[in-house]
Amino acid sequence: MTTTGFDYGPLLRGDLPAAAARWNGFPKYNFIGGHNAPENIPVDELIAAATRVLKREGPTLATYGLQSGALGYRPLREFLVGKLKRHAGIDCNADEILVTSGSLQALDLVNQILLSPGDTVLVEEASYGGALTRLTRLGVKIVGMKLDEGGIRMDALEQSLKELKGRGVRPKYIYTIPTVQNPTGSILSTERRAELLRIAAAYGVPIFEDECYSDLVWAGTRPAALRGMSRDGGVIHIGSFSKSIAPALRVGYIVAGWDLLSRMLGCKTDAGSGALEQMVLAEYCAPHFDSHIDTLGKALKLKLDVLVDALAEQFGTAAEISYPQGGIFLWLKLPDSVDTSKLTLAAGKEGVAINPGAEWACDAEWGRKRLRICFANPSPDVLREGVAKLAEICHREFGVPLRSANVGRAAS
Amino acid sequence: MTTTGFDYGPLLRGDLPAAAARWNGFPKYNFIGGHNAPENIPVDELIAAATRVLKREGPTLATYGLQSGALGYRPLREFLVGKLKRHAGIDCNADEILVTSGSLQALDLVNQILLSPGDTVLVEEASYGGALTRLTRLGVKIVGMKLDEGGIRMDALEQSLKELKGRGVRPKYIYTIPTVQNPTGSILSTERRAELLRIAAAYGVPIFEDECYSDLVWAGTRPAALRGMSRDGGVIHIGSFSKSIAPALRVGYIVAGWDLLSRMLGCKTDAGSGALEQMVLAEYCAPHFDSHIDTLGKALKLKLDVLVDALAEQFGTAAEISYPQGGIFLWLKLPDSVDTSKLTLAAGKEGVAINPGAEWACDAEWGRKRLRICFANPSPDVLREGVAKLAEICHREFGVPLRSANVGRAAS
Repeated sequence: MTTTGFDYGPLLRGDLPAAAARWNGFPKYNFIGGHNAPENIPVDELIAAATRVLKREGPTLATYGLQSGALGYRPLREFLVGKLKRHAGIDCNADEILVTSGSLQALDLVNQILLSPGDTVLVEEASYGGALTRLTRLGVKIVGMKLDEGGIRMDALEQSLKELKGRGVRPKYIYTIPTVQNPTGSILSTERRAELLRIAAAYGVPIFEDECYSDLVWAGTRPAALRGMSRDGGVIHIGSFSKSIAPALRVGYIVAGWDLLSRMLGCKTDAGSGALEQMVLAEYCAPHFDSHIDTLGKALKLKLDVLVDALAEQFGTAAEISYPQGGIFLWLKLPDSVDTSKLTLAAGKEGVAINPGAEWACDAEWGRKRLRICFANPSPDVLREGVAKLAEICHREFGVPLRSANVGRAAS
Repeated sequence: MTTTGFDYGPLLRGDLPAAAARWNGFPKYNFIGGHNAPENIPVDELIAAATRVLKREGPTLATYGLQSGALGYRPLREFLVGKLKRHAGIDCNADEILVTSGSLQALDLVNQILLSPGDTVLVEEASYGGALTRLTRLGVKIVGMKLDEGGIRMDALEQSLKELKGRGVRPKYIYTIPTVQNPTGSILSTERRAELLRIAAAYGVPIFEDECYSDLVWAGTRPAALRGMSRDGGVIHIGSFSKSIAPALRVGYIVAGWDLLSRMLGCKTDAGSGALEQMVLAEYCAPHFDSHIDTLGKALKLKLDVLVDALAEQFGTAAEISYPQGGIFLWLKLPDSVDTSKLTLAAGKEGVAINPGAEWACDAEWGRKRLRICFANPSPDVLREGVAKLAEICHREFGVPLRSANVGRAAS
């Protein structure tokens, strides 16, 4: 490794995020991140799609934005118009969709046009770690929304908004993952969605609806999206192909009115997201999307059940799980004596990677008894082994579960 | 078009860039932007590359970053190691390369880690408009570096740095496009490069070297990159596949030490750039890159000569051109009576899109007599027609050239 002699230190901005750590490969038991099942990547169909679309439109790669402008490859946006109507009850046209480099860029763009330091937003008390990190970096105040098994508790939300209004605070948005909530895996009912829309409108607060996981629902169907139910456009909707097709493609999207998309485009300084992914996705998805997510959903459910069985076997009643309604992760609570941030460090040293609840919660202390396990990527065997190893480490560090896996097995 | 009833106006940040305009297709005479020649996109080879790499590694799309971590697809970085050594004399390893979503993201990341409002940077007096816009938005002070036909004038640069030092100002970087300068098309000689490195080191100012166009050099070879000549790593180097292969792919890269890349990764919030482009490029470029840029360079040179002939025919001596040493654009000066910003507006209404020099210059007034014409995308016929149309409009608006195209033709 070359080290540079030139000292850039004094020239760096003072307020930078921490330096990244070097990448040393994936951990053996990779229970973090939104990775998907390698065996479910539709490789042959993607090759066929790439071949077809490049044969037909390859020369358009010579122009920025292909022949579609800054909103993204038009056939992909047109596919999304149909998909969003069919699955999520969203009526929109292709000019109300901005294709982004993953839903992470979507998150950044929404934040960029709305948030300044000192602003307030409402976020589910357990939520996507990447969203929380962004908000913290932006110097935004995060007010947690209480959750129960059905998602956001509307009484508590209304109470929070009332208090904020009393203090003269108009929050910039209510961030919610209503369909397969991250990390709890719950789905907000149609009734609660209606109530959420009513409350948000009453307080003049837009809803920021993140539907990254909503294509993977065990029941096969899901309630209409908040964006679909809204009558006034007070909902910004984002989604992604990362969980439904493949995360490495980095293709997400934003559904919003031109009043907002035109401002986001002003901040999207990358001259468009990658064309090949957009072209291949459009070509692949039009004929295959629905059957693919059906197959993928069934495969993921099998992995989830392996994970749930392994947790029951290894942790017994010590692990209180929220059985998710879809998706790729499971949220669980361990007894109060366990600190999952410490557990994450100890497990990490032995190749078991988990998300500590403190990083997935508005209140780190509340999160510290909880953790998230992603189950889409590992094979069933790796899931079983990893959970056994996690139980062993947790037993060693915290005496929980009372009998470690090995002892349990020896006794049976 | 749906208009939203919800009024987001009061919630938007006050300091946003202007809203984007709707896209209405490309102009008929599209002489702007870094578009490339559609007839030179190697479609069949890209299909073959996509097929091979997806067959071999398709399932890795299931993981963020494939199997390569956040710096980008390792085989692409390994290709770059060889290419940069071979073409640009840069010795680096794959861990000193960060793959980005085009060189625009590279620009943003370099700026993000170094620049705060009020900082000073040095930029060639005529430079890439996108770089200038970014710096202005960031509230950075831009000091122009005088150019002559060979690029930056070292005497003037040293004088500027001396003055700045006298005022206690240490600039954050010297931004230069040394190999096929944008917009002048000049190539900085090895001697001037050595002098630039000496001066920059003497004043403790790093060089930010942008080599987006350096693969397209009429002479076939080019001087070693500043990054290659530097002994202390005081040069951050960026490059792109946009001009050498295809802009819509959005793949660029940064060459720098881990001390900087680790900070940039902390700011790169997109969980990786698109994998398919990276995979296909690596697979395509390893066997084909050098022969492709050879073919492409020859084709572009032919188009340039069509443009130069058309300008001579239509504008005569009124157009002073800098004949570029490579690349995809030509920079020209018109008589003082012409205001190219006004000409751009008038021409735009009639389907002729040009870059007004004011947007490509540190000093807008100096730029106002100049303009940039991109010649890679249009066919020779469109180039000829567009230049004739531009001369006609310029004659009508400013009386320059003295005899408009039609009159000239009628008289001959």
